[in-house]
Amino acid sequence: MRKEHDFLGELEVADELYYGVQTIRALENFHITGKHIDPDFIKSLAMVKKAAAMANMKTGRLNVSIGKAIVDAADDVIAGKLADQFPVDPIQGGAGTSLNMNMNEVLANRGLEIMGHPKGSYDIINPNNHVNMAQSTNDAFPTAIKVCAIIKSKPLIDSLQRLVDELEKKADEYSTILKMGRTHLQDAVPITLGQEMGAYASGIRRGIKRIKSAMEGAHVINMGATAVGTGLNAEPSYIHDVAYELSEVVGEPFYTAENLIDATNNTDIFADISSGMKVTALVLIKMANDFRFMASGPRCGIGELKLPPRQPGSSIMPGKVNPVIAEVLNQVCYQVCGNDLTITLAVENGQFELNVMEPVLAYNLFNNMCYLKNGVNTFVDRLLVDLEVDRDQCAYWLNRSVGIVTALLPHLGYEVCSDLAKEAYNENRAIRDIILERGLLTEAEMNHILSPEEMTKPGIAGQDVLKNSGN
Amino acid sequence: MRKEHDFLGELEVADELYYGVQTIRALENFHITGKHIDPDFIKSLAMVKKAAAMANMKTGRLNVSIGKAIVDAADDVIAGKLADQFPVDPIQGGAGTSLNMNMNEVLANRGLEIMGHPKGSYDIINPNNHVNMAQSTNDAFPTAIKVCAIIKSKPLIDSLQRLVDELEKKADEYSTILKMGRTHLQDAVPITLGQEMGAYASGIRRGIKRIKSAMEGAHVINMGATAVGTGLNAEPSYIHDVAYELSEVVGEPFYTAENLIDATNNTDIFADISSGMKVTALVLIKMANDFRFMASGPRCGIGELKLPPRQPGSSIMPGKVNPVIAEVLNQVCYQVCGNDLTITLAVENGQFELNVMEPVLAYNLFNNMCYLKNGVNTFVDRLLVDLEVDRDQCAYWLNRSVGIVTALLPHLGYEVCSDLAKEAYNENRAIRDIILERGLLTEAEMNHILSPEEMTKPGIAGQDVLKNSGN
Amino acid sequence: MRKEHDFLGELEVADELYYGVQTIRALENFHITGKHIDPDFIKSLAMVKKAAAMANMKTGRLNVSIGKAIVDAADDVIAGKLADQFPVDPIQGGAGTSLNMNMNEVLANRGLEIMGHPKGSYDIINPNNHVNMAQSTNDAFPTAIKVCAIIKSKPLIDSLQRLVDELEKKADEYSTILKMGRTHLQDAVPITLGQEMGAYASGIRRGIKRIKSAMEGAHVINMGATAVGTGLNAEPSYIHDVAYELSEVVGEPFYTAENLIDATNNTDIFADISSGMKVTALVLIKMANDFRFMASGPRCGIGELKLPPRQPGSSIMPGKVNPVIAEVLNQVCYQVCGNDLTITLAVENGQFELNVMEPVLAYNLFNNMCYLKNGVNTFVDRLLVDLEVDRDQCAYWLNRSVGIVTALLPHLGYEVCSDLAKEAYNENRAIRDIILERGLLTEAEMNHILSPEEMTKPGIAGQDVLKNSGN
Amino acid sequence: MRKEHDFLGELEVADELYYGVQTIRALENFHITGKHIDPDFIKSLAMVKKAAAMANMKTGRLNVSIGKAIVDAADDVIAGKLADQFPVDPIQGGAGTSLNMNMNEVLANRGLEIMGHPKGSYDIINPNNHVNMAQSTNDAFPTAIKVCAIIKSKPLIDSLQRLVDELEKKADEYSTILKMGRTHLQDAVPITLGQEMGAYASGIRRGIKRIKSAMEGAHVINMGATAVGTGLNAEPSYIHDVAYELSEVVGEPFYTAENLIDATNNTDIFADISSGMKVTALVLIKMANDFRFMASGPRCGIGELKLPPRQPGSSIMPGKVNPVIAEVLNQVCYQVCGNDLTITLAVENGQFELNVMEPVLAYNLFNNMCYLKNGVNTFVDRLLVDLEVDRDQCAYWLNRSVGIVTALLPHLGYEVCSDLAKEAYNENRAIRDIILERGLLTEAEMNHILSPEEMTKPGIAGQDVLKNSGN
Repeated sequence: MRKEHDFLGELEVADELYYGVQTIRALENFHITGKHIDPDFIKSLAMVKKAAAMANMKTGRLNVSIGKAIVDAADDVIAGKLADQFPVDPIQGGAGTSLNMNMNEVLANRGLEIMGHPKGSYDIINPNNHVNMAQSTNDAFPTAIKVCAIIKSKPLIDSLQRLVDELEKKADEYSTILKMGRTHLQDAVPITLGQEMGAYASGIRRGIKRIKSAMEGAHVINMGATAVGTGLNAEPSYIHDVAYELSEVVGEPFYTAENLIDATNNTDIFADISSGMKVTALVLIKMANDFRFMASGPRCGIGELKLPPRQPGSSIMPGKVNPVIAEVLNQVCYQVCGNDLTITLAVENGQFELNVMEPVLAYNLFNNMCYLKNGVNTFVDRLLVDLEVDRDQCAYWLNRSVGIVTALLPHLGYEVCSDLAKEAYNENRAIRDIILERGLLTEAEMNHILSPEEMTKPGIAGQDVLKNSGN
Repeated sequence: MRKEHDFLGELEVADELYYGVQTIRALENFHITGKHIDPDFIKSLAMVKKAAAMANMKTGRLNVSIGKAIVDAADDVIAGKLADQFPVDPIQGGAGTSLNMNMNEVLANRGLEIMGHPKGSYDIINPNNHVNMAQSTNDAFPTAIKVCAIIKSKPLIDSLQRLVDELEKKADEYSTILKMGRTHLQDAVPITLGQEMGAYASGIRRGIKRIKSAMEGAHVINMGATAVGTGLNAEPSYIHDVAYELSEVVGEPFYTAENLIDATNNTDIFADISSGMKVTALVLIKMANDFRFMASGPRCGIGELKLPPRQPGSSIMPGKVNPVIAEVLNQVCYQVCGNDLTITLAVENGQFELNVMEPVLAYNLFNNMCYLKNGVNTFVDRLLVDLEVDRDQCAYWLNRSVGIVTALLPHLGYEVCSDLAKEAYNENRAIRDIILERGLLTEAEMNHILSPEEMTKPGIAGQDVLKNSGN
Repeated sequence: MRKEHDFLGELEVADELYYGVQTIRALENFHITGKHIDPDFIKSLAMVKKAAAMANMKTGRLNVSIGKAIVDAADDVIAGKLADQFPVDPIQGGAGTSLNMNMNEVLANRGLEIMGHPKGSYDIINPNNHVNMAQSTNDAFPTAIKVCAIIKSKPLIDSLQRLVDELEKKADEYSTILKMGRTHLQDAVPITLGQEMGAYASGIRRGIKRIKSAMEGAHVINMGATAVGTGLNAEPSYIHDVAYELSEVVGEPFYTAENLIDATNNTDIFADISSGMKVTALVLIKMANDFRFMASGPRCGIGELKLPPRQPGSSIMPGKVNPVIAEVLNQVCYQVCGNDLTITLAVENGQFELNVMEPVLAYNLFNNMCYLKNGVNTFVDRLLVDLEVDRDQCAYWLNRSVGIVTALLPHLGYEVCSDLAKEAYNENRAIRDIILERGLLTEAEMNHILSPEEMTKPGIAGQDVLKNSGN
Repeated sequence: MRKEHDFLGELEVADELYYGVQTIRALENFHITGKHIDPDFIKSLAMVKKAAAMANMKTGRLNVSIGKAIVDAADDVIAGKLADQFPVDPIQGGAGTSLNMNMNEVLANRGLEIMGHPKGSYDIINPNNHVNMAQSTNDAFPTAIKVCAIIKSKPLIDSLQRLVDELEKKADEYSTILKMGRTHLQDAVPITLGQEMGAYASGIRRGIKRIKSAMEGAHVINMGATAVGTGLNAEPSYIHDVAYELSEVVGEPFYTAENLIDATNNTDIFADISSGMKVTALVLIKMANDFRFMASGPRCGIGELKLPPRQPGSSIMPGKVNPVIAEVLNQVCYQVCGNDLTITLAVENGQFELNVMEPVLAYNLFNNMCYLKNGVNTFVDRLLVDLEVDRDQCAYWLNRSVGIVTALLPHLGYEVCSDLAKEAYNENRAIRDIILERGLLTEAEMNHILSPEEMTKPGIAGQDVLKNSGN
């Protein structure tokens, strides 16, 4: 055991621990979720510390041998070592002071170890004076959130891109499968299944663009803001260097915010990123619902799609297979929406020079990035790539439909078409038969107008045989 | 390795595993949160299985030696054994089929082991035919959610009750500490700090009542509903017995829903419980904010309260102590609100005979119950019991205030009082001096009217010296 | 024009106006929604003022001739007169001070008029000293919200009760219409349409109970709390009387809150009422969605229900009829959920002795009560009473289904049944044929087991012919 | 009275009405909010109709004399005429079919009137065949939402820009007013009030950018999509022209969506715009809260700001002035957040080829644009331009503070500074005195380090006198 103290007093710390007194206080204070800090977030904060140490060495304020030890310690953490030395709860008080001090202590003690000193020799490497030099939780913590968000955004965007790619493959593959289009869940006019897949892809592509655009804000950091954004204790040259060093460490460009005070007070950038994911989730919910409806059946539903069976669907109904993969995507998206509200509430509740609600904000942001990525990858891997279509069923519905009368509108006018539709429904007849019976069109005209090609592309179906253009 | 199969085919299962083929499929399908099922939920589902086995033995449908083995296996799980045999992700597809089958498999294999048979001998004890007898995921799963919610509600309510008790202690202790009351964050009229503490207690007591009231719905179960609520394959005597057996197992009364179909389709009861927690959280947020405002300072704020210092407040500002315990309660409450939205979305999206979004619903419900309990206990243990008051500061503010003029309203009328207030503000004078100067009241009258006793209880302050009652 | 002044200065007021200087300031300050205060809210506040005047006369503090004039003026407003004299915006600052003063001014001037004095003679009847006697916005305003919520809850509950009644009628009427039950949108086991209607009714009945239960809190008022809840300037006898008088005026029992400070600080009761509506809305969304799915078609969907055609469904597709009534109920419910969040945010943001966000809270609460009532009545009147069922379509689906194999589970076991289901799907055959072909049951046994009566009530279908009970 | 019919039957229409049978059906169907369609939305839809008529004339499909009459009729509506002819409820079923048909009927009848024909002569100008030519509600309605959103976004952005400009003025004006910075509501280190104002401006500027960026999506329209997005009945040349014509009519560039099906199915663009406003609202809430805290008092609070008095603040407390303007901005922002959830739910619930929840979506989107604009303008006009600062109070707090010790950190180290802070608090002494007493710095050094200039700009305060750089 070693002894450590802070201004609240002295505590004994087990000697094998790299963290110290302040982490132990945090452990006493915060038993909330029982969950762990996201490993990417730990690495991100270590990257921030490394960059700060590099910049502090450059200004000459940080002794090089100490600085190098801190950098080496940070590299250990970035490499995933010492992962069990960050036990603080993700939902913690204090704007992240606990995690920041946890990191400062671990890096100090690991640095001391690297230098050959016993842990706790804070007169040599001090968690506050050296590791946290020219920093505050109020700049290091939100910067680490940004680094982590960038790291996590990449596989998220990759997953969405994979979904787009796979949907576009399906768009091609299904480009000739004509099916009934539905609006209001009511029969409308024909469309191809490929067109539908292409529309999903198109919507999700917009989601990718939106998330990427929101992520731009994550590259603007407030390192050097220190306590309240004024930059007290952070030299201008340090502020300039630390953004450069962080860019080097992370491999992504970072820029110092033009207004460091704003960048310390306001956390709207995270609400923005969260919104980008939420809006994308809404598009995914719609898609997943459509898949579930189209796969409804197998005998008593729409039955146009056959989802790959992934597990017996029921503990009581033999042979039942459920659209569990689409369902789990739905659930992930609901979680994304709920967590977005948590983030909204956190962002709303900043006060004066700081938003202290950042820990819960970060927790929900990273969970959303992670869950959404997993949900989307699951949808691609476990559903989409093995999707099958019941082409007969698509054709069956189409042939029964009355909605194709819409294609005749330019030829016969709204009123005549309404009348045809009414008769078809009332007498349960095929629309084609009534048209012929009434002599409204020749069979050839009708077949031409109602051909798949004519009905699913822009234009008046059968324009070439259109008689009364002023109709 | 043993071989198991379901209607999707055969799989190899490591022999030490108690779960089987369907759990393995779930593991392949769902990598979403990386989190574990709440241990209380696992126990709750085991309780449901035990009760069902007991009821099935009573009807004679379940062979007694098999039934006993299932019951013993369930008791193991209830006792916390085999906890590592439930690896499925909390956010999973299929209305909880994966967890239900996970449990069915573990109980079957543990039952087989108890009976001396090798695991996988499903011809002897079958996960579906025996463990799941007369059940469906669609009744067992939501019933287990209810059991778990009841289990988790007790420590939650205890924590809230502790908070109420402690606040009421403070109400007594601070009953004579007069301070400025504030509305719109503007000086209003005097109040005692004890009155404020009592008001927090009163609001939270209403929260307890609300949660308890919502929990009543959790005692109404749909066991016997089976697949769609009609009770197919569940004998009436079983349905009657299983509620009784579950009451015995859990030690809480359970009642069979009058309408089993509704109880299978609709999950509003969970939204109701969640609402109860959310509304309580809103009261807690307000309280936590008030504490943070009252403790603002130490030198440049309201400074009426001194929160116990729990950790150094800043990595950069020496001596700073932050209200981290109140802050973490705020954050917990934001999470509760966000998770309530996730539950709302899950409940909204039921379809026909089932709401398949129950897994994400359960996950958020249990997290909220757990986090809220922890947040409240933290507030009591780490803040409230060691709370201190700066009585001088309370008196300081009060003596400066102009708002006490309100007490003179029945004596002098709104207009005169407005004028007094205006002069006090404009000339930066004490309201008492102006009154005396103008000869509006004698000093004795004024002191009597403006005494703490007169100003903080219902009634006209100085009623006994009131001159013009019709004013 | 008459001149009026407050402590900000003097203003000219057009003589025909019953409101005065403070209302005019409110009009200058708040141009937000351009909407009007809900007429029921205006009446409710007048009821509060009337009750206060009665109680103030009883204590002798209010001169009887003035008091009577105020009461008469309030009666005018309660009767719907002077409705155009309340022009303040529903979203206003100041906890409702603007509306409270608007009412105080109108009652003072109308009272003066009744007494034969010119408007503005505030030395005779003063808006603050007389009309607002022993009151504060901080008690009168939330009390008026409660009165209004009670008034509005009655037609809301009536509408929900009508829906329940009508659904129960349908439950009877459709009690023999067998149809396919669906879970996960996949074919499950049979159910009757009547059972489904009964389940909707049952869920909504729970909503009524929930709203009624939450409304109980609206009967607990804080009249007499005055500025901060301590009751300064409100005599105990007045506090006692005013609740009694309000009960008389409104015709509903009102009780003084045990803790007036809590009742002034906290607005959770409104979040509670809102939650009750929101949770009910979730049940309604599910029902409306089910109706839309069941009515999908007319040729290319489920087609079990035929909603009454209410308007041509498309400006382009002749003959199309959409489920517009169900759709509008969905939309109303989304609005209810959104407004519930606004209320949540308002309730969260109380501070110290008051929650100043009450105006936006009240606005959303009343809108929700109104819209939800209208949405539900619309659903009953324009959809449910004229609902038709396509019995042939229900039968068609049922006969195609494989899910009925579940009823054979106790007879044949999960594995055999799985195998039967698999063969039926793979070879596109009827399940009945395979059973007979394999000789698993006699035709008579099968017909008995699979009869509607056996399949839609609790119990083992064909229990009497069950062979291997231990299965 | 004239007779009109649709395929549901015949109805009598009062002859003075410009709307017809389908509008009347909508009025029978939808009594929900009792509110009116936003006038800008009516104009926007008329603009869409005008553009469509122009494009239809160009393709030759629409007879020029009819087309001109439609265009003239549309110009009337755009000019604000016939405003009372659009009585349909904003929350309506059917994806907006009711409003679209309302417009089609009004333009047809007004067109007929212009041509000298009696209303109802639909054989000459038909609402469906002519006014709605080549259109569907499913393209015209969402396009009109986009046009309206663009129209409404301009004054919204103007209001935000005014706020930015005014805040920046204040930033200049207050650039030398040193005050205490606060984090966690606890004293931190000094900052200038001007820096705070600049930070608000900076945050809101980001909001403007975000809204503008989201608005880009509103320029991408789906005119020509017709019923399901395939463009059935819309010639390619029309599709090309109609975007051009709409650009001409509105004076803003519009582009045809690359994927018309996606643009018809998905409404995420509106969720995106709504998110932009919501996130901006979060920044505004934080700012409004800060203003309210800083203005707390006047005698018993922070008291750094003096908000212009806008109305007497209390009906009971004379002389009280409340921050009602900031409060109303808070409330507006809560409404914006709640309505954003309504929009979220609407967007989530699209199905297949359409999202029918557009009416409630549009209603909430426009309300938010309108309320937010009004709330922001109110804040500027009624609060910000007349803001006053209590400089003495700012200085008073600063002089009392201990937080300035942070500036000494590089000079004395974290531990010594902690100790100084502790002593200052414990013995209630000025930090400066202790430093001198201990001889840690000379008075000159201390005064230099702790000067306003040194403490509020980036860098080590007193860098030039720094002794131990490696500390």
